[in-house]
Amino acid sequence: MAVYGGIEAGGTKFVCAVASNKDDFRDEIRFPTTTPDETLSQAIDFFQKHHAREPLAAIGVACFGPVDPNPASPTFGYITTTPKPHWAHTDVVGRLKATLHLPVGFDTDVNGAALGEHRWGAAQGLDTFVYLTIGTGLGGGAMVNGRMLHGLMHAEMGHMRIPHDLTRDPYPGWCSYHGDCWEGLAAGPAIEGRWQTKGQNLPVDHPAWALEAHYLALGVANIIVTLSPQRIIMGGGVMDQQQIFPMLRQEVQRLLNGYVQKPEIMDAIDAYIVPPALGNRAGVLGAIALAQDAAR
Amino acid sequence: MAVYGGIEAGGTKFVCAVASNKDDFRDEIRFPTTTPDETLSQAIDFFQKHHAREPLAAIGVACFGPVDPNPASPTFGYITTTPKPHWAHTDVVGRLKATLHLPVGFDTDVNGAALGEHRWGAAQGLDTFVYLTIGTGLGGGAMVNGRMLHGLMHAEMGHMRIPHDLTRDPYPGWCSYHGDCWEGLAAGPAIEGRWQTKGQNLPVDHPAWALEAHYLALGVANIIVTLSPQRIIMGGGVMDQQQIFPMLRQEVQRLLNGYVQKPEIMDAIDAYIVPPALGNRAGVLGAIALAQDAAR
Repeated sequence: MAVYGGIEAGGTKFVCAVASNKDDFRDEIRFPTTTPDETLSQAIDFFQKHHAREPLAAIGVACFGPVDPNPASPTFGYITTTPKPHWAHTDVVGRLKATLHLPVGFDTDVNGAALGEHRWGAAQGLDTFVYLTIGTGLGGGAMVNGRMLHGLMHAEMGHMRIPHDLTRDPYPGWCSYHGDCWEGLAAGPAIEGRWQTKGQNLPVDHPAWALEAHYLALGVANIIVTLSPQRIIMGGGVMDQQQIFPMLRQEVQRLLNGYVQKPEIMDAIDAYIVPPALGNRAGVLGAIALAQDAAR
Repeated sequence: MAVYGGIEAGGTKFVCAVASNKDDFRDEIRFPTTTPDETLSQAIDFFQKHHAREPLAAIGVACFGPVDPNPASPTFGYITTTPKPHWAHTDVVGRLKATLHLPVGFDTDVNGAALGEHRWGAAQGLDTFVYLTIGTGLGGGAMVNGRMLHGLMHAEMGHMRIPHDLTRDPYPGWCSYHGDCWEGLAAGPAIEGRWQTKGQNLPVDHPAWALEAHYLALGVANIIVTLSPQRIIMGGGVMDQQQIFPMLRQEVQRLLNGYVQKPEIMDAIDAYIVPPALGNRAGVLGAIALAQDAAR
């Protein structure tokens, strides 16, 4: 059975794992994201040691961004214009290939997690769906007709504009590019900025959650009419507040107002807007899935 | 050279044509959309007469909706829940097949027009792009990774929610489902409702057009961050007001504010947001393209 290396390359930590599939993890390591030299060297060292014992078929990287995921581009596999110090224009795939001499699959963190959910989780059997993560940021990945969506670059769904309900929410939004875009109003830092405490300190019946459900529903409804997904998977730290899900589903139905006449939305929305099935291993399992595809 | 039949099935008129490709139209007829019996019979009669002289390889239908474009569905080829009298639950493909005994390709009007622009127009060589029409309604079709987007149903991009600038625009929007959704604020009837006259009566320097460009830009920016298209083609009666294009492009850049660092948007947006290349034959040429695909 072929064994793969996966890197969940996050802005605050890297998770590296060796696995043959979802239920067969051979090794795993986590360390903070510092400089590219130090952090990528740690990842390479981990895989080289494992590779010496048990050969790896390929490496997959689900990477924070923005990135260049276009294999035809001269900067394929780079982190491009990130504001994160030291990481702009880092050739992630090039460094891994030059040292490990293995095929390397590469995509955004959210596309990776989406691919993992498609292979082993809540999106099995679908061909068009969206994976959203709502935490310190708000990002989305999509599969359309069985292949990951890239297009011009990759989706940056957190930066869509939604109506800002200024009558009940004077909070201006925190996005440094757009102020009150979707991420600016609905990601974790917006909850903390608006209520002056972290979300996990707010009781489950606090009005923060109805407002959060409203903003999340606006973006979700926009995704439904734009991408027409067969399911929407929503994870990340904010969605650990499970009281959001029923309010969010109801608000999506209210906003669509019967316009999309499909039973998935009208009758069975509990199975349409769902949490991830892979829990906190979604990211690194997505990287393993990218490695499997790269080995093919 | 194979010859195809195409139907641009609109809510107010049908255009039927016979052609082998964009530059070889053999026959064309236009008639108003009345009842399904009468209108589809006229179309069938037109194709039967031509078929007796010169056999057709297939028929394509680019159809007003909502429709069911999923070939695996029992209601494939139906107009589904349209409010248009007599047309709800009409089996368009079934009637054509039963009388013409030919393969029938079928998609939404906007997906058809998008496919036509891909084959012969402004989207040649791309694999992920969006076609928008802004007229009496606002609709969008998309190709992703070389195939038309359908997903759960099909896109209904006109119904996304965008920020409504109530400080300079008290007009409430006209969408009967959502009030001030994108279509409710930016399609032709919104211009007429807001300024109490049709758009074609407003001078090119009227403030209506800057506001129109602003609303269109909000939806276009949302599509850019959600679908990451390589190009956006914008047609329809409202876009015949060509003064909108420069204002719209500038407003999209202002809204994105440098977040999507791609030369297509930062430097060459004139070639990124463009009018259709096929003019008023885009719809029926899209139907011909659907027929070509159905014949394969």
